[in-house]
Order: sequence, then C-alpha cells, then structure tokens
Amino acid sequence: MALGEFELIDRFFRRPSRRSDVLLGVGDDAALLEPPAGCALVAATDTLVEGRHFLAGAPGRSVGHHALAVNLSDLAAMGADPAWALLSLSLPEVREDWLEDFALGFYALADSHGVELVGGDTVRGPLVVTVEVLGFVEPALALRRSGARPGDVLFVSGWPGESAAGLAMLRGGVPMESRDPLVLRYMYAQPRIELGRALRGRASAAMDVSDGLLGDLGKLCAASGVGARIDLDALPISDRLLAAHGREASERMVLLGGDDYELLFTLPAAGADRRQAELTRDFPVTRIGEIEAGHEVLCERDGRVIEVTGGGYDHFA
Amino acid sequence: MALGEFELIDRFFRRPSRRSDVLLGVGDDAALLEPPAGCALVAATDTLVEGRHFLAGAPGRSVGHHALAVNLSDLAAMGADPAWALLSLSLPEVREDWLEDFALGFYALADSHGVELVGGDTVRGPLVVTVEVLGFVEPALALRRSGARPGDVLFVSGWPGESAAGLAMLRGGVPMESRDPLVLRYMYAQPRIELGRALRGRASAAMDVSDGLLGDLGKLCAASGVGARIDLDALPISDRLLAAHGREASERMVLLGGDDYELLFTLPAAGADRRQAELTRDFPVTRIGEIEAGHEVLCERDGRVIEVTGGGYDHFA
Repeated sequence: MALGEFELIDRFFRRPSRRSDVLLGVGDDAALLEPPAGCALVAATDTLVEGRHFLAGAPGRSVGHHALAVNLSDLAAMGADPAWALLSLSLPEVREDWLEDFALGFYALADSHGVELVGGDTVRGPLVVTVEVLGFVEPALALRRSGARPGDVLFVSGWPGESAAGLAMLRGGVPMESRDPLVLRYMYAQPRIELGRALRGRASAAMDVSDGLLGDLGKLCAASGVGARIDLDALPISDRLLAAHGREASERMVLLGGDDYELLFTLPAAGADRRQAELTRDFPVTRIGEIEAGHEVLCERDGRVIEVTGGGYDHFA
Repeated sequence: MALGEFELIDRFFRRPSRRSDVLLGVGDDAALLEPPAGCALVAATDTLVEGRHFLAGAPGRSVGHHALAVNLSDLAAMGADPAWALLSLSLPEVREDWLEDFALGFYALADSHGVELVGGDTVRGPLVVTVEVLGFVEPALALRRSGARPGDVLFVSGWPGESAAGLAMLRGGVPMESRDPLVLRYMYAQPRIELGRALRGRASAAMDVSDGLLGDLGKLCAASGVGARIDLDALPISDRLLAAHGREASERMVLLGGDDYELLFTLPAAGADRRQAELTRDFPVTRIGEIEAGHEVLCERDGRVIEVTGGGYDHFA
C-alpha cells in the first residue's frame, strides 16, 4: 500500500503539541514558534546519508535516533536547551515498518529532551535525512569554540571510541540486531545535553566530538588561536573497549573515532579542580590535557611527544 | 583539486555578517541568533533532490536560487520577514565551478531579502539540497491556511503555470542556458515576500502555490473546513503562456503546474474590492473565485461545473 506524502506525515509524524511555545506546528506552510525573552536562539543542522553516516540497511529506529542525536549534540556543545526540530526525509520508497521504526527512535530521544517536531518535508529520493534543531541559551552563558586560553585545563566527557568500536563490529559482520553494548553505543549514542547545561557560563570553550577527538580538538584550538597537549595515559578508555581491542587500538579509537557525541571542553585553571569535582558528581568527565600557546595539538606519554596519524572525519578529503 | 569540507565552507559560504542579530554565524557547533521581541519565530524547511525537484545537470546558480526560493515562499505564505537560513548540501563530488555558481544563485536571492546564511552541513552523497529558513511575524498578524470562511473572495498572485511551461520546454530539449522568459521563470521563480507582508493581518487565509493551484487550494480548504469555487475564465494566463500553449493547455498549467511560488489567499468579502484595488497598485493579484460552505473544490465556466483531472504534486502518490 502506497501512502501519499500527506498521509505519511499525518500517520507517523503528527502528534498533539506538548509545548505551549508552539503556536502552530506541522501542517501549515511554516511553523510559528514563541522564543523565550532574553535568550539567544541556537540553530544547528546535520545531514545523514545512507551508506556514509549510517550503514545501508540500518534499522529505522537507529537512524531516527541518530539523525536527532547528532543535532542535539551540537546544541549540547553550545550549552543550549533544545526546544524544536524540523525533519527532512528523502526516501526511496515508503516502507511503513521502517518509517514507524524511524519515528519511534526519533520520538524516544525527542521526548526525553522535551523536543517537539514542528515541521519538515518528505520527498522521494535517495535515503538522506536532514534534521534542524532549535534551542535557547542566555547569550552571555553560551559555550563557544573560541574561548580557550593557554593554561586552561582540557576535559572530555564519557568514553569516546566506543561508537567506533561498535561500528567496527558491525562492519565485521556482527548483525545489526546485536545487543552488544558497543554496538548499542554506536546505534544509540546519547547527546550530552545535561552536561552542556552544567557547563554554561563555566567552560571557557566547548565543542562536541562527532568527527574524532583529535581532529575536533584541532578545530577548537584553531577557533581559539591556541595549541593543546593531550596526555595519552589520561585518556578515558572503557573496560569493554580495552577488553575488545587492547590498549593501543583503543587509544586510536578514542582519539580518531567518531559518532560519540561526547563534549570536549576547557576550564580556566583557577578553580578547575573544584569544578571538576562538582561535575564528576553528575557526569563522567576526564581531564586529558591542557591548552597551550601556539597552534599545535600534541599527544604525549611520559613527557615524550607521540605522533598519532590520521585525522578527523572530513567528508570531502 | 579536492577541497576538504571545511575549506569548502570557508571558500564558498562564509561571508562577513551583515545582520546585527547574528551573534555567531557559520563556524561553531551551532549559530547564535537574536530574535526580535514580540514576534513569533517562523520556521520552514524544504528539500530538493536532483532529477526530481530540479533537472539533472541543472546549473548551480538555478539550484542555489531554487533551494532558497522554495523556502522563502513558505515564509511569504505566513506573512513573515525572512532573516536567517541554514543549508545542508549533499554532493557527489566537489565541482568548484558548480559550487561557486550555486553560491551565486543562493546569495543573490538571500541578499535581495536581507537573509543571512548562519550555518549548515556539507556531506558527500547524492545531490540533495535542504534549506531551512527562519523569520518573524507578529503572531496575531500571521497568515495561516485555516482562516478561510464561506463568502471570502479567493485570489492568486502573478502568473501561475509559467514555471510548468518553462519546465516543459526544458524537458522538450530546450537547452538550460536558454534565455526564454518561461525557462527563466522556471529556473528563477521569485518568492512573494513583499506581497506576504502586505497581506498580513488582512488575508483571512494564505498559502503558497508550489505543488499546483488546484491541489494547494484543496489543502487550504481542508485546513479551513470549507469548499471553494474557481471561475476558469478568471484565471490569470499570461500572454506568453497563451501564445505558447493555447487556452486549454494553459489553463491546465495554471491549475496543475508547480514551482511558481505564487500566493493563494482569501479576503473577507466586506472590503475585498477596496483591498484588491490597494493590492493591485503594487502586486499582480487576480480574483479567481470564492470560498463556499462544504468541502468541495469546484471549477466552473459560465455557471457550469467543469471537471479538471489530475492533482497537485504528491511525492509518494
């Protein structure tokens, strides 16, 4: 049974509004929204292409989750409260079970952060998913990439590298239905919205790690006009990552793997210990190095510089 | 020469900010924007797929224009002032001349409406372009699809059908470089932002005609819970459309053709003549029928109902 575009939107993506700041949601030419006074609007968009950003044949639930998560991660990196999303779906065909699954994954994550889908577009074409998210933050408290200063202490949240390990398992033939924690971590990585909130007005700089820690740190340093030094022995490596890949490969996954949606951030040295202790009560955060003058990003072990080859994910390199 | 993603953004899409309400534009995890007090935020998104929404091999300039125009048309239909845009580009390869051309088309239209590109994403994949636009309108003045009432007078702007005629010429072998006015109209149709502004607080309902007048009128009527009657002899048919296709085919193009970005709107009967006279001083608008009780959309000529088969453009029908 072929569903038309409008039936499709109605059936899978139209739900009663839950936010009082949505004056008009899905169904008109555009959405009418009511931003809170005194806040900056925060806007981000990311596109996922089948076979490039998610595996061909990936379950709809994971793709729906992933498409929203990568965007929410951008808001987390700004310290923003997410509010609204728009969804553009290009689909080769209407497979109702896949779409229902996609909507489940999308809404499970949206609901957990109070995000409402307020508009979008569905077209026939190759499987490409674009989500735009909108949120808010007081302008003076927003986290930016450009505020890191020499002497600032460098942190990363959670356990980067696990997504890359999960992806490697899937590429190696592990079925997509696997409940292995590393596979689930790749399929359903969680954006660090709450940590972003806790960092606003506190971190001197922040960005999300979506293309690999080392490459993304390079971008943060370039935006701030600084360099950085990473202590390889301080990197957070989860027990399960270590068990699966050993120290050396795990380290590379932590430094170069993508799709983790962890936050990389800097704290001014003064008060960094106290702040770290406060953060650690609620979030897994690890001190991995420090910001330096210059423009180089160096990795070291026992005081010796170690070269780590390979960079972040650059879609056209 | 292959350009990386970040060089690509820098080279073609990063420009000095021109709007004081852009606190942070392209280059961080998300944009920081400052909406005006007392206004609703208006948000829309549309996706264009090569070979479906634009012809394979279409010049970048036309695709860049088209991708923004279809979105600005949605804002026009709400009576909104456009402000900001985000752009997601999925590209099979980096062809610098095409991208430069795309940016030219995009920015020419953006600049003419004071719109600033504040973020986006570039990925490798099939040629798919998604734009999201954000604008403002006082909530009480916003144009919606749902306000039409029986007795309201029905209008359309400009000369719908010309884009369809231009597309038919291209499909028939006319080269894309043609300067034929109908071809140019298809490649560079202009959104009716100024007319949308003039209608706010005045039109009882409005929407843009992007999928065909008849199908779109059906959506407006469904949203308003009314029917409508179109007087076929009142349809605006441009001289060049008539000269190229004759009366009958032209009428079908006006009723069923897409991509015109004209506005379909209703005015309350009381004062409609005066309002029409005012509008006509600045905009081409034509009275084409009226809103009725019920739910049917009928076309008539000399008091007899004429069946027009074929509907609007439904991407999955």
